[in-house]
Amino acid sequence: MPNRVFAVLFTLAAVPVLAAEEEPQGPTTAAVIEQSRPSDWRPLDPENTLYLELESGRVVIELAPQVAPHHVANIKALARGGYWDGLAILRSQENYVVQWGDPHAEAEDEEKRRPLGKAKPKLPAELTRPAKGLAFAELEDPDTYVPEVGWSGGFPAARDPRAGEAWLVHCYAMVGAARDMAPDSSDGTQLYAVIGHSPRHLDRNITLVGRVVDGMERLSVLPRGSGDLGFYEGDDRPAPIRSVRLAADVPAAEQTALEVFRTDTDAFAQLVEARRNRREEWFHQPQGRIDVCNVPIPTRPARSR
Amino acid sequence: MPNRVFAVLFTLAAVPVLAAEEEPQGPTTAAVIEQSRPSDWRPLDPENTLYLELESGRVVIELAPQVAPHHVANIKALARGGYWDGLAILRSQENYVVQWGDPHAEAEDEEKRRPLGKAKPKLPAELTRPAKGLAFAELEDPDTYVPEVGWSGGFPAARDPRAGEAWLVHCYAMVGAARDMAPDSSDGTQLYAVIGHSPRHLDRNITLVGRVVDGMERLSVLPRGSGDLGFYEGDDRPAPIRSVRLAADVPAAEQTALEVFRTDTDAFAQLVEARRNRREEWFHQPQGRIDVCNVPIPTRPARSR
Repeated sequence: MPNRVFAVLFTLAAVPVLAAEEEPQGPTTAAVIEQSRPSDWRPLDPENTLYLELESGRVVIELAPQVAPHHVANIKALARGGYWDGLAILRSQENYVVQWGDPHAEAEDEEKRRPLGKAKPKLPAELTRPAKGLAFAELEDPDTYVPEVGWSGGFPAARDPRAGEAWLVHCYAMVGAARDMAPDSSDGTQLYAVIGHSPRHLDRNITLVGRVVDGMERLSVLPRGSGDLGFYEGDDRPAPIRSVRLAADVPAAEQTALEVFRTDTDAFAQLVEARRNRREEWFHQPQGRIDVCNVPIPTRPARSR
Repeated sequence: MPNRVFAVLFTLAAVPVLAAEEEPQGPTTAAVIEQSRPSDWRPLDPENTLYLELESGRVVIELAPQVAPHHVANIKALARGGYWDGLAILRSQENYVVQWGDPHAEAEDEEKRRPLGKAKPKLPAELTRPAKGLAFAELEDPDTYVPEVGWSGGFPAARDPRAGEAWLVHCYAMVGAARDMAPDSSDGTQLYAVIGHSPRHLDRNITLVGRVVDGMERLSVLPRGSGDLGFYEGDDRPAPIRSVRLAADVPAAEQTALEVFRTDTDAFAQLVEARRNRREEWFHQPQGRIDVCNVPIPTRPARSR
């Protein structure tokens, strides 16, 4: 990694920003991807990939069992039981989240609620996990919220070294399990995706379960709801959910074969540096820093393996 | 401002985050607004407010002449000459920007291009301005990108004390003037609004001219374009622009009478603190910090004056 800039900038939080005349050297984002090796990419694991099928097409969600094992197991049980099929997007709140699940989840008449099938009605909150044992590629740039941010297993994440805890963070496109007032009131039946400026104030307040890796624009453009918090009501027309399936349960020919750029490689470190100091001709003022939520993680159609 | 938390947290960039059991004291965001005085609000200045009229309704943009006087003057001249009337949204790029202007701006046949009228064809870049003379309410929380962030005149902003410069920053809903490769190639005819995670890497690379203060959801849900960078092409259906008018040129009865929460008051400092440590019942883990782009600036219908 090119490194005069690197060495100078990370010593203090309040160092001056890079002067315009100090042209950073190194490849652009496009060049990093172009020069990447097959081993810099990983296929999605069909056992931990969810397909949310809308009228507009498929949204591909990568699940994070390493951080939220109980929620992911329940979500898989719900998907395998066809829980969401025919349900709907419930909420689209401007600059915040889109949320989906059972419109009758709160119905007094229990018969109106979609049954959970083999899924559990009660889960532990999975707001953090032990940092020990979790691979973590740290971003050295300062973060507003916590001492350590970076990536773990392809997800933006944070750590508190004193508490020995790690957690995923609410960047754009992250997916979480909606809950009521109690921290452990999420069961995975209602999920949300971040569609605005990353709401980091939600970190460790609610369980994150994964990230949208493809088709995010099918969620982000949904009409905002007219109710409180963007819930659909009155004349709003909630988008129906055709089905939610685990990729492993879909015939191979119908799977979305994607590869995701690994976040634990030298190539990813180069990508971060290319985002930190943009080298594209259009940019004249490199920032010398990058926010963990401003490093899009590339995907591409899977190559034959 | 409630202040054990305040005093403890801002001494170092790498202090531990607030422990869950330390319940922060103070009003919620809703309570700060509820308890605000009339003097905590300011009306929009009709001379510096733009109405972008789409089929879905009005987008209200507050201009920032204190930071980009040449661009704002040109944008006002363009609006007064009806420049954008009948033109279109040109671009909607997922997690980035929506952009509008003349689809034929690059036409070889000059006759196809919308004429500029009394507006200037060439402007200076207005990437920064002298910090001196610009009111600035500093946010003490650490920022990833620069030593000083905060608000100026209702806009999220940054300063470099060594260079003596200030500039607006690319938070969600900020509006800028699109340009080509040269920093001074924007003339205000093509404008963009941020619709995704705040792209702070654009700061000081392109001239910001204002902020969407109402109707942002009319831009953020526009279908993403299928071309490179989200430009509309092929079968895409660009949203037409009915008109762009300066509020001052619209009959009083047709104006959107809005008040914006001031950013230079004790009430705003309380609002920031309420965002930093969320006191709503739903939140169990206050962060103790807040990102400058995660403090929405409230608006409300104007009271009779």
